[in-house]
This record gives sequence, structure tokens and C-alpha cells, in this order.
Amino acid sequence: MVVQGADGGGANDGSPIVIVSNRGPVTFSRTESGTRTHSRGAGGLVTALNAVSRRQKEAVWIASATSDEDASVAEESRDEPYEVEDLRVSLVEHDEDAYDLMYNNLANPLLWFVQHGLYGLPYAPALGDDTRRAWEKGYLPVNENFAAAVERVLEGSPRGRGEAEPIILVHDYQLYMIPHFLRERLGEEPFISLFVHIPWPDPEGWRVLPRYIREGILRSLLQADVVAFHTQRYARNFVRTANEVLGAEADEERGVVRYDGREVWARAYPISIDPGEFEGLAASDAVREQESSVRNLPGKLLLRIDRTDLSKNVLRGFQAYGRMLERHPAMKGEVTFFAGLQPSRGDIPEYAAYAEAIQKAVDEVNEVHCTPSWQPIVLSMEDNFPRSVAAYKAYDVLLVNAVRDGMNLVAKEAAVVNEENGVLVLSENAGAHEELGEFAITINPFDLDEGADAIYAALTMPEEEKKRRAEALNRQVRENTIEEWVEAQLRDIDAYRERRG
Amino acid sequence: MVVQGADGGGANDGSPIVIVSNRGPVTFSRTESGTRTHSRGAGGLVTALNAVSRRQKEAVWIASATSDEDASVAEESRDEPYEVEDLRVSLVEHDEDAYDLMYNNLANPLLWFVQHGLYGLPYAPALGDDTRRAWEKGYLPVNENFAAAVERVLEGSPRGRGEAEPIILVHDYQLYMIPHFLRERLGEEPFISLFVHIPWPDPEGWRVLPRYIREGILRSLLQADVVAFHTQRYARNFVRTANEVLGAEADEERGVVRYDGREVWARAYPISIDPGEFEGLAASDAVREQESSVRNLPGKLLLRIDRTDLSKNVLRGFQAYGRMLERHPAMKGEVTFFAGLQPSRGDIPEYAAYAEAIQKAVDEVNEVHCTPSWQPIVLSMEDNFPRSVAAYKAYDVLLVNAVRDGMNLVAKEAAVVNEENGVLVLSENAGAHEELGEFAITINPFDLDEGADAIYAALTMPEEEKKRRAEALNRQVRENTIEEWVEAQLRDIDAYRERRG
Repeated sequence: MVVQGADGGGANDGSPIVIVSNRGPVTFSRTESGTRTHSRGAGGLVTALNAVSRRQKEAVWIASATSDEDASVAEESRDEPYEVEDLRVSLVEHDEDAYDLMYNNLANPLLWFVQHGLYGLPYAPALGDDTRRAWEKGYLPVNENFAAAVERVLEGSPRGRGEAEPIILVHDYQLYMIPHFLRERLGEEPFISLFVHIPWPDPEGWRVLPRYIREGILRSLLQADVVAFHTQRYARNFVRTANEVLGAEADEERGVVRYDGREVWARAYPISIDPGEFEGLAASDAVREQESSVRNLPGKLLLRIDRTDLSKNVLRGFQAYGRMLERHPAMKGEVTFFAGLQPSRGDIPEYAAYAEAIQKAVDEVNEVHCTPSWQPIVLSMEDNFPRSVAAYKAYDVLLVNAVRDGMNLVAKEAAVVNEENGVLVLSENAGAHEELGEFAITINPFDLDEGADAIYAALTMPEEEKKRRAEALNRQVRENTIEEWVEAQLRDIDAYRERRG
Repeated sequence: MVVQGADGGGANDGSPIVIVSNRGPVTFSRTESGTRTHSRGAGGLVTALNAVSRRQKEAVWIASATSDEDASVAEESRDEPYEVEDLRVSLVEHDEDAYDLMYNNLANPLLWFVQHGLYGLPYAPALGDDTRRAWEKGYLPVNENFAAAVERVLEGSPRGRGEAEPIILVHDYQLYMIPHFLRERLGEEPFISLFVHIPWPDPEGWRVLPRYIREGILRSLLQADVVAFHTQRYARNFVRTANEVLGAEADEERGVVRYDGREVWARAYPISIDPGEFEGLAASDAVREQESSVRNLPGKLLLRIDRTDLSKNVLRGFQAYGRMLERHPAMKGEVTFFAGLQPSRGDIPEYAAYAEAIQKAVDEVNEVHCTPSWQPIVLSMEDNFPRSVAAYKAYDVLLVNAVRDGMNLVAKEAAVVNEENGVLVLSENAGAHEELGEFAITINPFDLDEGADAIYAALTMPEEEKKRRAEALNRQVRENTIEEWVEAQLRDIDAYRERRG
């Protein structure tokens, strides 16, 4: 790995860098006494982009204003970024209705479902006027609003040394139309990359979207210079989709799409974590205080930590565990399945129904298999991050059985702090499988019996084999850290610009 | 088109030809007086294979015995084909439980759903021991039973002139494992093609299957010489699937897969119909008797004819029609939607639920939009083929909006007998779209408003435009008849064997 210092060589040296993501690194509020205060955001994307910010100290980070105080900061930072801690942020206030349509009617139900392949197609989606409205009155204006903010930030920024072109790093499925609006405003000059943090489906899957959306988004993405994903599979799916839906010229092998006179690179940069951050957390008081609650559960610890998302395959996880107990009754009392499920998107009806189905599945397994002194599954549907990290340290088996998952950072976070040579049971459809698959027990997430067998194999694996795998897993995660994730992207930006001349 | 006579040149000249399909061309029964009688089967596949039989007069057709009398014929035709009309058939009796597992537990629920992309993946399928049992105790033995029958037929058949190798033409998703069992028994000598009559999904879709099935089927298909589909898209999906799931060497452009030392061609032969057959039907008394019942419906005739299959997208068809009436109230009384839906697979719970949902959707539209003298939708859930053909003659608009569909022969059948310059509204996911799309109004089957707009545009299309499209459609169907479908396959068999030397 070649690490370039912040002032090192490379074509991006001196270029103004702008990060754009829907959710920002900080949220502002007022204390009772009326002083402005802020809290630093958490979550995989924020951690990752923090690393970009660290690497590129002059970077400005544009994000949506989500609180009243954010709105004040947005107003104040219209012309000049707001400096907070080591960050330079510029917040964007959106029309409330537009934001709601973008977020709750288009990005989260429709794009999320299509890209994870979650629809039961005989019945859903039923696309129509509501979809068009969410697109035209929500998704497009919010994206245009962001593009205007990028333009303002660039106008206010010094152009660095000489002729350096600005670099715009756009993130995720809420913001697909930004490249389109940016080119309208700024032409071909800025370098634009857009990072898709969720799976990119096969062309058949993408074609579920209404024509104006599926083509509109692709055309916009092909106005970027690099479209980035977590896995080779998603990058290849994207190249194929561009070819089949727009007729773009595609070179799958090289990950290049040519369209409308432009050359676009489709690249995979598997996102990672900051191992030091999790080591610090693992040693913190908050986490230590939670440890006994997970370590005192009877028997070995089978763990899952997820949002209650339909993509996470929570139901089949419990069903597979139930089958394992059915086949191996001797395991009763020898293991407890602790499921820490953070509630998610409860206002979308599909999610509310899913949360109910989860509770029912847990009750069924507990009823059938419990003993007077033992409860097979302990379910916690609350957001308790310190307890999750405590459980990371303590698990014997970690279950990540997603239907589909962009990356799944839980697998990586847990691997670096686990103290038990825990075994990873990993869905072949999690993005993390491309990197971690060879050290895990791979499962087809739809196959309950394969899941049951995998859980049993993991629980009964010889200590030596567990150790070998856990060490390799840990090493793999530490070798591709979040810093490397940033560097790889910056190297490609240099390469792309060099090629373009 | 180069038509080779039955005795014309070509490498297949003189080769024994064996057709294998689950459903056969005839079913036998006994009259009350105890004489054996038979009825000729109908349906697209039977029509198509009849054409092969006509072209290759010596062909033997192997199919499952499905009646008691079939079983007697199976017994009698063990060593020598049974001759009936112009056909030579050999029926295969299966173990009843094995057949049931193959048909009702594996082929129709699982493979059908996977290949049409019908599962709502957060909940279904829940694969497990039942799946494995249906595979091991049902699908495999039934397929092996067929392979044994092929071997018997070949042993009893004269080897034609000289060294000609046998040609085995296997059909459809119930019989994927026949190539595997045939190679075990007969080695590399016979030419084997397997025709897949339903969609082949993208690799992500195929990966839903449990590992032993998805790999087992692919390995068997790659023991054939040609794997055939109705569209280029399915052939390409197959090549990609073989590459991604098995790691087979794939040449997408040329449609070639190399695996295990063999070269396999993936080819598209769009199946068609016998226009003469439908002209004859259209002129028959049985059809004429039904005409008034469809022609007397008020206003223009919007038609759909389908099985009540989840792949057919019946619900969204009614919903789109309802939206059209909502937007264009002036159309009330000016059109009637006649839906002839043949009940299908009512013993599979998903299908029973779908039939109920259909009735509910019809009731809703009828309730909201009816007038004292007009019912918006007339639903018939019975199997009345003469009335369907009568409706083919009379429709102004034909709606084919399948979620996914291997080909959809209704679109072709109806086009050749329609007398009203009827307009075809066609799903981009129907196989027929590759050939007929440019003469139809194309819709995304998931978009209700696009469907509503398409129905309205079709109902109000100027006569001249309708005529131009209807004529082109008719011509297109007549130019690629079922005879050409057969010839194209035989030509490729020649080419393949020539290449192999």
C-alpha cells in the first residue's frame, strides 16, 4: 500500500475536495442556556467519511440539515463552511415536504427495496402517480438543492495551487441525481465520483423501476467519472445494467462504461472500519458495564446485531436456529441466541409487519425448545450500542445471514474485538463475503437447513480451527482499513485524471 | 429460410431422434365398452413438438404416463414405440410419490418461482429438508427414469444409415437432470439439446436455489450440447449464471460455455405457433358459437387470456385499467375488459391466495366505476378455449402485462386471427417482446400508470396507426412460424456436429 500524505504528490493535491452525503458528521442543537452544541454522528458511512476528512484536511462536507439548530448553521454556512472540531461542514436545508418525499417515499421504500431485491413482484411495487410525484417533487429537488450547495461551496473556496480541478465525492442512493445537476451547473471540469453503499442489482432487478427513474438515475451516474461500490459483483452488475437499460458501451472486464461521449469507471472499494476506534470502544467503561449481561447468558453465545430491516433475514435466522435445536437436542441449554435488533423505519408498513413477524418467530422457537432453566433466544429490540460492542467481544458464533447486504460492517467490527475466537457464519449475499468468505462458514441465506448445519458446525468447531479462522479474519480486516479505502479511491482519481490528461 | 426436407441433407439425416417432455402429445383412456381411445393434447409445447414430429417422421416421443390407460401403454411400449395417428410415442410410468414430489414440490413451486422471480425474498422460500427430499426422492428419480426410457428406445431403434448419432431433444424445467443421467448411461455419443421454455433469471435470481440444486442443474445442463431458450436475454443470463455459479468459461457474445472439457452452446429460438391451426380454429363452429358472447359486450373489447399464474400480473392489469377509468371517465361504457382466466395450480397455497386477490381486484374496479348499464370488467375463471379464440378475433386491445413470461404465445395466437386491427399492450418482460415489441405498446409491468396510459393510448389509437401495427405484427408472427423454429434448431445441430467433427 502506497500512502500519500495529505501534502504528498498526486493530481488531487491542491484540489478543493467536497464530500456530499445525506446524513452528516454532526448534528447541532441548543442547550437549555441557549448555547449551540453538537453531537458527532455514528454509523459506518460517517466513520468512513471521517477518514476522508482526516486525510484531506481542507475537505468540506455537505449534508442535510436535520434539526432546527442545523437549519441555523445552514443559514450561517451558506457562503463559508462552518468549522467544528476538525471538520468543515456546510449544511443544506431542504423543503420539508420534498425531503419527506425523497426519503420516505422514494429512497427508502423504492430504491432500497429494488437494490436489495426485497419485493414480492406479483404484488409489489405498484408504481404510479405517487412514485412520479415522489421523484419530481422530492428526489429531484433535494438533489438539485445539494448540487446548488456544492456550487456555492466551490465558489467560496480557494482554487488551491494553480489549475487543480475540484473533486466532488457524492455518497449513496439518496443522491444519485447530483452528478446530473452538477454537470448542468459546472460542466465537465470537476471530478465527480458517486459511491453506492448498497447492493447494485442485476439488470432484471433494476428494470423493476419505472422507466423515467431507472434511465434518469443511470444517465446521471454516467455523468460521474467514477461510480464506486463495495464489491466487484455490484460493479459488474452496474456495468451490465448500463449496457442493457441504456445501451451504453460496456467493458465488463475493465469496469468501463462509455456513454454520451464520456468514459466512466465502475470500481469496487470494499469499505472497512477503524480498528482502533473499536479497540477503544471495547476497552471503554460503557462497554465493560454491559459485558456481564451478555456473558452471563447460559452456554455459548450465538449473536446477531442488526437493524430490523427486511434485507437482514432475521426470520430465517431464528428458524434455522430452531431447526438446529430440533436436530441436536443435546444443544439445549448449551447455547443462547442473543439478538440485538435496532428498530428501523417503523413508519413503513412493511417494516412494522416484519417487526411483528420477528417477535412471532422468536416466541415460536422459545416455546418449542425452552427448558425450565433456559430460554433459547434472548431478543432485544432497542438501540444499545455499548451492549452490542460488549457482545462483539463475547460471541462464540456471529450470524450474518442477510438476504442481500451492501457490505455488513458488523462482521468486521465484531471480528476485531472478539475475544473468543468466534466463528462467523456469513451469507454469500453479504458484500463482506468477497473479502471474508474464505474465513467464514458460508451459507445460502434462503436455506434453513444449511443455516442450521452452519450454526451447529460453528458451535462445535474444534478450538484450533476456530483460532485459525478468527486470526485470519482479524488480519484480513486490519489489512484493509478505512484508511486504505480512502487511499484506493484517491489513487484512482489520480489515475483517471492522468488518463483524461 | 432454407427448408430442409425430411429426407434432405444435413448431418442429422438418418439419426434416430428422440423427443422427451414431461407432458405428452396424447393421453389414453378406455371407453365404456373397454376399447382404448386417446385424446390429442393441446398447448404451446405440444403444438411445437408436434411440428418436430412432423418434420422428423421417425422421431419417438417420450413422455410421462398420466392416466391408468397411459400406464398400460407404457408397459406395452417398453421395448418398442407405440404408434398412434402419425406419432410414435413411448410413455414412462413413474412412482406416484416421486412424480408428485418432482412436480408439486420442486418444479412448480421452486423452479417456476425462481425462474420467474416471484418470491418475496424476506419471507420465502424457506428451503430445507423438504426441498432436499423433493430433489432426491422426486426430481432425480423421475429424471433418471426418463433417461432409462431414452436408453431403451435407442437400443430398440435402427441406427439409420451408417454412423449417425442419436439426437435427444429434452424439454423444459421438469427435466433438467436428464442430460446428466444420459451421459452416465450413453457417454458423449448422442447429441443432446435441452430447451428451457420459461425465463432464465439473472445469476442473483438463480442463486436463490440451494447449492446442490443450482449447481446440480447447471452441471447437468452443461452435459448437453445445446441449451436453448426463447430469447437472447435468457440465453445470455444462462451463460452468465454458468460463469458465476460454476466458474465455467463463458463467451457471452458467441453464446458459448466451456466446462469440464465440453463446449456448450446457449441459443435462442423464439417459439411460435402454427398460423394455419389458428385460422382453422377461428373458422370452426365451436368458436363461431362463442363470438356473440364476446362481441356483444358494450364498447370496445379490452382482452386478456391467461392462466391464473402469479407470473401473469393479473392484479396490476385490473388496477391499471381502474386508473385509466379514473383519469378518463369519458371511457366509461366505451370499453369492456374481458378477462378469460384459466384456473391453475389451485392446490399451491400461493395460487389460491392469488385467485382470491384477483376476484377482489375485479370487484373493486367494478364497484367504483360501474354504471347502471355497464360493468367495467367481465371475469371468467374457467377453461373455455373456443371462447378465447372467439375473443382473439374480436379484441380491440390485447393486454399481456406479465411480470415475466418465457414467451407468451397468446400474443402470437391472437395476432394471426384478430379481425379488428387490435393493438397489443405488451410487457417488456414477456419473451415475445424481443420479436413483437416494436409493433406493440411496451409497458413496465410494475408501473400502473404506464399501464393505464398504454391502455388508453391503445383504445384511442387512430385507425391507420392501428392497421399499420396490426399488419406488421401479423406478418412478424407468420414469418417465424413453428416450422422455422424446428428448422433453426436442426440447422444448429448440424453446425454443432460439423464443428465437433
